[in-house]
Amino acid sequence: MIKAAILTISDKGSRGEREDKSGEVIKEKLQEIKADIIAYEIIPDERAVITERLKYLAESANLVLTTGGTGVSPRDVTPEATRDVIEKELPGFSEAMRAESFKITPRALGSRTVSGIYKETLIINLPGSPKAVAECLDVVLKSITHVLDLVKGTVEDCGRQ
Amino acid sequence: MIKAAILTISDKGSRGEREDKSGEVIKEKLQEIKADIIAYEIIPDERAVITERLKYLAESANLVLTTGGTGVSPRDVTPEATRDVIEKELPGFSEAMRAESFKITPRALGSRTVSGIYKETLIINLPGSPKAVAECLDVVLKSITHVLDLVKGTVEDCGRQ
Amino acid sequence: MIKAAILTISDKGSRGEREDKSGEVIKEKLQEIKADIIAYEIIPDERAVITERLKYLAESANLVLTTGGTGVSPRDVTPEATRDVIEKELPGFSEAMRAESFKITPRALGSRTVSGIYKETLIINLPGSPKAVAECLDVVLKSITHVLDLVKGTVEDCGRQ
Repeated sequence: MIKAAILTISDKGSRGEREDKSGEVIKEKLQEIKADIIAYEIIPDERAVITERLKYLAESANLVLTTGGTGVSPRDVTPEATRDVIEKELPGFSEAMRAESFKITPRALGSRTVSGIYKETLIINLPGSPKAVAECLDVVLKSITHVLDLVKGTVEDCGRQ
Repeated sequence: MIKAAILTISDKGSRGEREDKSGEVIKEKLQEIKADIIAYEIIPDERAVITERLKYLAESANLVLTTGGTGVSPRDVTPEATRDVIEKELPGFSEAMRAESFKITPRALGSRTVSGIYKETLIINLPGSPKAVAECLDVVLKSITHVLDLVKGTVEDCGRQ
Repeated sequence: MIKAAILTISDKGSRGEREDKSGEVIKEKLQEIKADIIAYEIIPDERAVITERLKYLAESANLVLTTGGTGVSPRDVTPEATRDVIEKELPGFSEAMRAESFKITPRALGSRTVSGIYKETLIINLPGSPKAVAECLDVVLKSITHVLDLVKGTVEDCGRQ
């Protein structure tokens, strides 16, 4: 069973000034892989806060999906905070999401999302907009379940990497 | 209005021993996004010189396009110099340029171009050859204008990242 | 002439507990570019051992292909060891291999392979499974010969990067 946590990173969202549609989209999409959503938080774009919550959530979740804070404005620090936490970066997730999004919109190249493993938890940054979140999750959902199987050691260790 | 600077990085070019066709190609292509070209320099493959010029040009330009110095020879240091300067790397630009070039030629994988944001300026490394420069700019021109809009804050901050 | 070394990185393989099918696949594929295989070793997943062997093999080989140790388990340290050694990273090789593998299987995103130049030697991490090794080499074989020509300086330095 996948135990998933959703971390929405948004100054406005954390102050209740913006509805978190992207978090809702993640919830829906996670149904497709029958994940159990054990936590859902909205926090501001503060690097230290993000790293602290990523580490905390990883204690009980084996999948943490973030949305927001991956663009080019000064307040966007989600990729930096994620790199502070992960031990093994998995560049393929962001490469694939950007490549597929780029087929839809030139805006995809503005995304700086990062993914990787912290302890036994897979952390994936998703973009900020609901539409981009849905498209990107469609791209990587199957890969998520595969990597989580590998992390748990339930798959032949050298089957296909 | 996009204020663009072109930085050709070439030992031979800086000594006047090679015509800078790639710089000319960039000039032409920038017409397509109606950019105002405010500077055009040819400098040698010296890391400290490149970083100094990138920072200087970024004071007045919001887009700096480099050509040259991104290959595998010992004198090729453009990616290293660019990383010295940028504050937020945007890997999507180079990923997209390499992926599209790779459809045309296996040589694309030898490119080590880097892109990112320094202060409010977008810096993009382009390959060295005129043909590759033209192909790569075609791939990313629309993304350039989008990212510059985001940096200037003229686009809804969470529209699509 | 390409002088190639094959480095299989596998705890089980190094203890003789697993047949090295992936190394055999690399040998076969290297025929296609008429490479002379000058070394073939199987070593455990030990970061210091891997870096030592990469440097040693690079003294006589201008191409070193590794297989294994690029996944997400704690013992997988091939990318880290490779980064310890290379002087210029060539992200395009791994990007292209992951993108092409991803068309075949969602498992491709679990791969953390790294490639780059150390002195005058091209080092490329390949995945662990024989099937993935074959598919990935098919993607990059032509690019390998091109980059090696550039490193040796036998190609016009600015022809296409």
